[in-house]
Amino acid sequence: MIPPQEATEIIFNHLFTFPAETIELSQAHGRVLQEDVQADRDFPPFDRVTMDGIAYDFDDLKGDQPELVIEDMQLAGEPKKTLTQAGHCLEAMTGAVLPEGTNTVTPYEDIDVQERDGKKVAVIQKMPAQKGLNVHDQGFDRQKSEVLITKGTLLSPSQIAVAASVGKAQIKVTQAPKATIVSTGDELVKVDEEPKPYQIRQSNNYAIRAALANFRVSADFFHLPDSLEKTTAGLADIMEKYPIVILSGGVSRGKRDYVPDALEALGVQKLFHRVKQRPAKPFWFGVKEKQNAVFALPGNPVSTFLCFHRYLQPWLEKSLGLADRPTQWATLNDHVKFAPELTYFLQVLAHSDKSGQFSATPIEGHGSGDFANLLRCNGFIELPADRSHFRQGEVFPFIPFVR
Amino acid sequence: MIPPQEATEIIFNHLFTFPAETIELSQAHGRVLQEDVQADRDFPPFDRVTMDGIAYDFDDLKGDQPELVIEDMQLAGEPKKTLTQAGHCLEAMTGAVLPEGTNTVTPYEDIDVQERDGKKVAVIQKMPAQKGLNVHDQGFDRQKSEVLITKGTLLSPSQIAVAASVGKAQIKVTQAPKATIVSTGDELVKVDEEPKPYQIRQSNNYAIRAALANFRVSADFFHLPDSLEKTTAGLADIMEKYPIVILSGGVSRGKRDYVPDALEALGVQKLFHRVKQRPAKPFWFGVKEKQNAVFALPGNPVSTFLCFHRYLQPWLEKSLGLADRPTQWATLNDHVKFAPELTYFLQVLAHSDKSGQFSATPIEGHGSGDFANLLRCNGFIELPADRSHFRQGEVFPFIPFVR
Repeated sequence: MIPPQEATEIIFNHLFTFPAETIELSQAHGRVLQEDVQADRDFPPFDRVTMDGIAYDFDDLKGDQPELVIEDMQLAGEPKKTLTQAGHCLEAMTGAVLPEGTNTVTPYEDIDVQERDGKKVAVIQKMPAQKGLNVHDQGFDRQKSEVLITKGTLLSPSQIAVAASVGKAQIKVTQAPKATIVSTGDELVKVDEEPKPYQIRQSNNYAIRAALANFRVSADFFHLPDSLEKTTAGLADIMEKYPIVILSGGVSRGKRDYVPDALEALGVQKLFHRVKQRPAKPFWFGVKEKQNAVFALPGNPVSTFLCFHRYLQPWLEKSLGLADRPTQWATLNDHVKFAPELTYFLQVLAHSDKSGQFSATPIEGHGSGDFANLLRCNGFIELPADRSHFRQGEVFPFIPFVR
Repeated sequence: MIPPQEATEIIFNHLFTFPAETIELSQAHGRVLQEDVQADRDFPPFDRVTMDGIAYDFDDLKGDQPELVIEDMQLAGEPKKTLTQAGHCLEAMTGAVLPEGTNTVTPYEDIDVQERDGKKVAVIQKMPAQKGLNVHDQGFDRQKSEVLITKGTLLSPSQIAVAASVGKAQIKVTQAPKATIVSTGDELVKVDEEPKPYQIRQSNNYAIRAALANFRVSADFFHLPDSLEKTTAGLADIMEKYPIVILSGGVSRGKRDYVPDALEALGVQKLFHRVKQRPAKPFWFGVKEKQNAVFALPGNPVSTFLCFHRYLQPWLEKSLGLADRPTQWATLNDHVKFAPELTYFLQVLAHSDKSGQFSATPIEGHGSGDFANLLRCNGFIELPADRSHFRQGEVFPFIPFVR
């Protein structure tokens, strides 16, 4: 048995690399960027008017309520116009190019437009405090060629928008690997079957598939019966097709727990079996060359769920090329006692409260079989093995499972 | 102009209701539940063995190292067996039904199995502290018919798993409404077009479509030119097809800002125009009967993004039937000065740090046009209009935009 930190290190020493692929930007949400996205032009690409009003040369303003003859209008989407003479101005709209010969914009609410000798004149009611107001200078935000989004970024809505703005109609992302979730256990029936009194329905596979979908990884389901021969034969087929093999159940010390033996018979290198933790002590991890990563998770639903979020998800994120995310820390909201010398992953409902604390309320439930308890929680906190008493107000790492 | 709180109330007074539909559970992740999901059986459905070992009657134990003759084995997935005589036991595997006539399980690691007169005998090395150990009693977690997941819950992986366990192969969720994102502004070109020096590419539509996808709402794109006739005609068509109409741009006071006039010409009831906030002051909201909700957002990218997350998303969540979520609060990590009498939505990078504080670092950027700045942030904090100085350590509502 090894502690969770050692299990984590072993898992991180066996990351996979998945190839890149170029996809439509419209499909890229939730994918991991595999190139640097650069500014194709300055940001903004031209001196940009930011208020609807008049554009003029600041040095033309004389007196208290200067008047400027309106000679033209500069609309958004029009080529740049030029101010033809001193003492004049152009109307200019938000998003328009700042006309040549002007440097300042005053919004309509600060001017009064009057008619003089058949000409429209803008009378400035509120003097601009300085030259350059309401103009967003070319290149002020970002320079051409500057890297805007770095390789390894998860593409969320703001990244998608910036990629669109620089013309990335296609974008390079990590290919989503194929995964499978293999349930074991003769007591399991399918979701649409009526279980006999001594049977239960499969559910871990649904939980993991949904969690994988957050990373745009799809997963197929298989079920293997409690037989060494059939488990070995079934896994042999499965391992041909799926680089990521997630097993649920069959890794304890029961008489019918054939998963470790079957995996070793298939040449999967066992990297660890059993972790000093509750839940999910029987967790098994191994790899077959660079071909398969095998996460054999204990079958109890809370154990499966914990292992996915604490071990498998970080492995997946790193293997997809995602940059590291900072650990989240939560303040324990109650006293907790846990005597065994195991790392205790406590189910909590955490929330950033009105005091600005990210506080975690323990919701213990009835052990690793009580997965209805997960519904009331949004994560685990990780309590170290070398202590038994954990006090209200102490801070521990938080592992979220609701997004 | 109205303050954000009033805008919120108006929006919440104009929620929509979308019909329910029954879909495959495998498609339900991220959808909003439209029925109560009940336990179809007790949880667990039988007295369940939770460790691999031997099952026996606690009252049979005599002396220091009692011996029990192993008479049979109870596997997971087998019908319940019965202990035939006192002083005997059955081997029993995790997930199996507890055999009739037994009440306690001792794991293999606490027993020694020996051969006596051709019979297998379990010698208990470590006495159980009490009757009933390692048995998960029928109905202990949840009783049959108990509501496990309530209507209005967002279906995340743990809910999907619990729904699977009670046989909900099909499940009732809110139908995803059709949405459209209509960009306006003659300066805009498509993502795959090469913009002229005075043009920019569309990007707000990409941001909003990706954000809507988090709620499984798909959205079509349209673009309307800066013309009252064309805007009105285009919107008339669009409003026939889409209950949720999101416009980007054309709501300021510019000479070519035709959106409010076009909407009013089409019989959309204006509920407000302009909110006392920065960014996104020109935000316009209206409804046409129960047929269309129209969110006309200012076209600056940061403004669009703010309005989506601060106003449109809560409206959508409530209209989909989602139960209220608690406000998140963040501790401001620096001093901030903002003089205008407007609610200031400050861009921040927030994180629950090692002190257990959910702390928000301001990343101000260059105003509402500087959307590359959003890439460095994960939310806004909402600073009230009636103050100008906001001190480090003060706590404000947090509006996340990265999931």
